[in-house]
Amino acid sequence: MPWFEDIPLGVTSELGAYTFTQDAIIAFARKYDPQPFHIDPVAAVASHFGGIVASGWHTSAVWMKLMVRSRTGVAETPDADGRVPPAGGPSPGFLDMRWPAPVRAGDTIRYTTTTLEKVDLKSRPTIGLIRSRNEAYNQHGETVMHFIGQGLIQRREPLVLHTEDK
Amino acid sequence: MPWFEDIPLGVTSELGAYTFTQDAIIAFARKYDPQPFHIDPVAAVASHFGGIVASGWHTSAVWMKLMVRSRTGVAETPDADGRVPPAGGPSPGFLDMRWPAPVRAGDTIRYTTTTLEKVDLKSRPTIGLIRSRNEAYNQHGETVMHFIGQGLIQRREPLVLHTEDK
Repeated sequence: MPWFEDIPLGVTSELGAYTFTQDAIIAFARKYDPQPFHIDPVAAVASHFGGIVASGWHTSAVWMKLMVRSRTGVAETPDADGRVPPAGGPSPGFLDMRWPAPVRAGDTIRYTTTTLEKVDLKSRPTIGLIRSRNEAYNQHGETVMHFIGQGLIQRREPLVLHTEDK
Repeated sequence: MPWFEDIPLGVTSELGAYTFTQDAIIAFARKYDPQPFHIDPVAAVASHFGGIVASGWHTSAVWMKLMVRSRTGVAETPDADGRVPPAGGPSPGFLDMRWPAPVRAGDTIRYTTTTLEKVDLKSRPTIGLIRSRNEAYNQHGETVMHFIGQGLIQRREPLVLHTEDK
């Protein structure tokens, strides 16, 4: 990650794509979301979906995997001042995860992230909060996932807090 | 799941507990969230967290596993009218996932769910939307996860839509 101060807003990055095989869908769901329409090809045909679909948690976990991969190595390059930018920080959580269309076996899903908001935190002067809009599309261009992500990123310089005169 | 009409609001259910071993934390994170503080015990000590912590996605995926387990078998019992209630439906997504405290290796996390809102949907008269508040606590009573879940549940009787006089 760059330093908090250096992150531009409104920039969309491609995180990569992932093909959800039926085997991978079933393996994930057996472990974390064993509902019939995720793990049983026969029962899935009779379900609301008409066939095997990926757990939404699987679609979301692949986003995390691609996001981490996109950052790997970035932190190792010193910036113009010779300082090593942060490797990316923890997340306090995220907002409004939506799965508006199913991910079916064989679908190739493309993930993007767009920087949306930078938040100065009075409580943590050395860290800033970045909010991003994350989207995933299938091969037909339909949106299959979107949510607002949040990440805590180190600032190059601590935030100067102004205290009001008394 | 019971029918939509029969779900009471304000009821908290225990979903069960899960102990996050260091091995399980690392295995999940290697696959989906390979950040140093999730997969590398030595690097984790030097991190913000001071030791290995579970990926928030892991904490959330275990909720899904326990939620599905809590519903297993419920759908197989016919109700007083001899009709078989639904097995639980898909989710359109969830709201405001928060991980306010880390889950550390060896922590035992207890999960609860509380029914919060029932939403009639003009767009889908045979299905209702249930919102629930889901919480997870460690053995010290600290909240480590909370979010608003959403589930689409079959109605016993279709919603009657009123059209205004013209």
